[in-house]
Amino acid sequence: MTTRTRELKWIEGHVTAARGFLATGIHCGIKKKKPDLALIMSEVPASAAGMFTTNKVKAAPVRYCEKVIESGAARAIVVNAGNANACTGAQGLRDAEEMAAITARELNVTPAEVLVASTGVIGMTLPMDKLRAGIPAAARALWESGEGAELAIMTTDAFPKTAAARVDIDGVTITIGGMCKGAGMIHPNMATMLCFLTTDAHVPPDALRQALGRAVAVSFNSITVDGDTSTNDTVILLANGRAGGQSLESGPAYEAFIDALTCVSQELAKKVVRDGEGASKLVEITVEGAKNDEEAKRGALSIAHSPLVKTMMYGAEPNWGRILMALGKAGIDMDEEKTEVYFGPIQMFKDGLPMRFDWDAAVALMKQPDVQVRARIGVGGGSWTVWTCDFNEEYVRINGSYVT
Amino acid sequence: MTTRTRELKWIEGHVTAARGFLATGIHCGIKKKKPDLALIMSEVPASAAGMFTTNKVKAAPVRYCEKVIESGAARAIVVNAGNANACTGAQGLRDAEEMAAITARELNVTPAEVLVASTGVIGMTLPMDKLRAGIPAAARALWESGEGAELAIMTTDAFPKTAAARVDIDGVTITIGGMCKGAGMIHPNMATMLCFLTTDAHVPPDALRQALGRAVAVSFNSITVDGDTSTNDTVILLANGRAGGQSLESGPAYEAFIDALTCVSQELAKKVVRDGEGASKLVEITVEGAKNDEEAKRGALSIAHSPLVKTMMYGAEPNWGRILMALGKAGIDMDEEKTEVYFGPIQMFKDGLPMRFDWDAAVALMKQPDVQVRARIGVGGGSWTVWTCDFNEEYVRINGSYVT
Repeated sequence: MTTRTRELKWIEGHVTAARGFLATGIHCGIKKKKPDLALIMSEVPASAAGMFTTNKVKAAPVRYCEKVIESGAARAIVVNAGNANACTGAQGLRDAEEMAAITARELNVTPAEVLVASTGVIGMTLPMDKLRAGIPAAARALWESGEGAELAIMTTDAFPKTAAARVDIDGVTITIGGMCKGAGMIHPNMATMLCFLTTDAHVPPDALRQALGRAVAVSFNSITVDGDTSTNDTVILLANGRAGGQSLESGPAYEAFIDALTCVSQELAKKVVRDGEGASKLVEITVEGAKNDEEAKRGALSIAHSPLVKTMMYGAEPNWGRILMALGKAGIDMDEEKTEVYFGPIQMFKDGLPMRFDWDAAVALMKQPDVQVRARIGVGGGSWTVWTCDFNEEYVRINGSYVT
Repeated sequence: MTTRTRELKWIEGHVTAARGFLATGIHCGIKKKKPDLALIMSEVPASAAGMFTTNKVKAAPVRYCEKVIESGAARAIVVNAGNANACTGAQGLRDAEEMAAITARELNVTPAEVLVASTGVIGMTLPMDKLRAGIPAAARALWESGEGAELAIMTTDAFPKTAAARVDIDGVTITIGGMCKGAGMIHPNMATMLCFLTTDAHVPPDALRQALGRAVAVSFNSITVDGDTSTNDTVILLANGRAGGQSLESGPAYEAFIDALTCVSQELAKKVVRDGEGASKLVEITVEGAKNDEEAKRGALSIAHSPLVKTMMYGAEPNWGRILMALGKAGIDMDEEKTEVYFGPIQMFKDGLPMRFDWDAAVALMKQPDVQVRARIGVGGGSWTVWTCDFNEEYVRINGSYVT
């Protein structure tokens, strides 16, 4: 999972950074005052790939998109915040379809070219009157202002999350941009991670799907705030080919595209972790020497999910035993006698025995906004990195009294 | 997992309630002031069964016991608190063996008849000088006073945990008693759940092992405070046959014994949950209508492990969507359109749609010290019940600043 970033150039911008994409965000009245409706559009037909929540309880827009995206093509995405359209039965699916139909009519595309995403409260049907008026207004704004899409998808987010980068592939400059929302599955009634990525690279649908799968595995699927999964989680990638150049489907050029897509995805994913409710730091956890990458990931996630590890990160005390405990319960092959644990550069455990280390230096290291933990478990060549945040009183305060 | 309790009579007492068992607890100096060394002994040879942590990182006494208990027989258990003898390499195993050898000498049994358990700080070798003096002192106390064993195994426990009951099986009165310690894996440096059960029933080793497996599955393996597993978790059951009567190995009499053992185990397990760090309530979670019991258990544990569910229980707000979210992410078969969610008697979700319910009544119900959650997921006949506690600021406070 090494990512080659040497050719990557970060730029300002987000989902409209690549050529031929428009986006906007407006207020249509689902929320009281804040922007709550976004549109994203490609000026020309685009390849489309999507990945959706693995939660068995899937929101209506997720069920809708899973079907529509099978064609591998899309032109537009309509997104509302404030209402998740989840646990809303058959009416929910009809509402998602109507959102697509209105968007198609206003943007002069076919309904099958429109994807839909929702985020917000679970268990209430959408206020369709507001969307029936709002989507045409958003379509007008798309041509006129084309701003604020990244704000109109936010729910409990403390800040908008965007990233964009350029990379030269065989003399052609490719741009990849994106925006996302989410602060962990911290408010199940106002939850969800949504990410929209666009690129002007020329990538056919099958290759696009594979590229997205690989990028998401080491970015959005390698972060955790609290181990909970929303009913609405969605990542969509559109590629409209406006950059010109060869079709990217295999070989070094295709790998370079995946590398760049991975970098942008990781940048966005880390922003979600930093915005974890009450989070005061980003914790990077790497497990090496596992039987394979899959087991390394399970070990790293076991550490990242442990409330004991997360509260330790908050308290900034190097109780390395919690790392061993979390590895041990992951159900993966490990050789305790060959296991090593590091916090940053400081080694704390070696050959099955604790080491003397500078406690104060380790505490100082853990008080930084970025903390690295690395464990080598001595059985093979598998490795994986995940990102999480600390866990503190703020999370409990917010989630213990959500409605009142 | 229905438990027949009609013939069970709760009595005062614990690990010495059954005929022919002695126990004591003393202070030997591993801890500064509190009791830290316990002995349990059967006056006659006994069948023995044990279950140990599934954590791959196993403490030395666990490795020792796993080997010794294969014989199916034991006479004595020596337990220290204050030091877990975990992550201590080859020296740790030698120290566990020496604890058994000293105990055997003092109690006039063979070392192979002595089981060893430890709980406390990880990563420090045992202060063997204190144990070399302490174990003989404990052996003297065993004959003289025989008190306080339940106190000498405590670490972060807020209260000692004991239970004992009698049951008539074919005219013979059987007693089962036990003591345990643990408040969830809340202090990985001072952690562990230990449970010691004794009975005067006559049960051969294989049948005893099977009985303990069944009782632990629906008691200690169905509770969770924070999803973390200690390196030292141990449950040991000794059966010395002093009650007389037939050998219990199959049929209704054996099932009656397992029922009683299950009741005592569940009583002790629930005390561990009530003592979960900062816990203000005991939450019972039942999943019904699963494909099988295994999937029901996975669904129930997914709910019980969710920080969102646990903080909701603390905040006493009936955000039923969190139950659906946790079920959905459990990776089990469920039919959302047939799913029902209840908090106590109040139904909140039916046929894939939210129901109107009395919010204030639900809040009042959630403020009780015991809360029941029940979900029916509409695919089969599997069911399981687990117990957990709420999750609040106190947990973060304690675990965020353990050492300082």
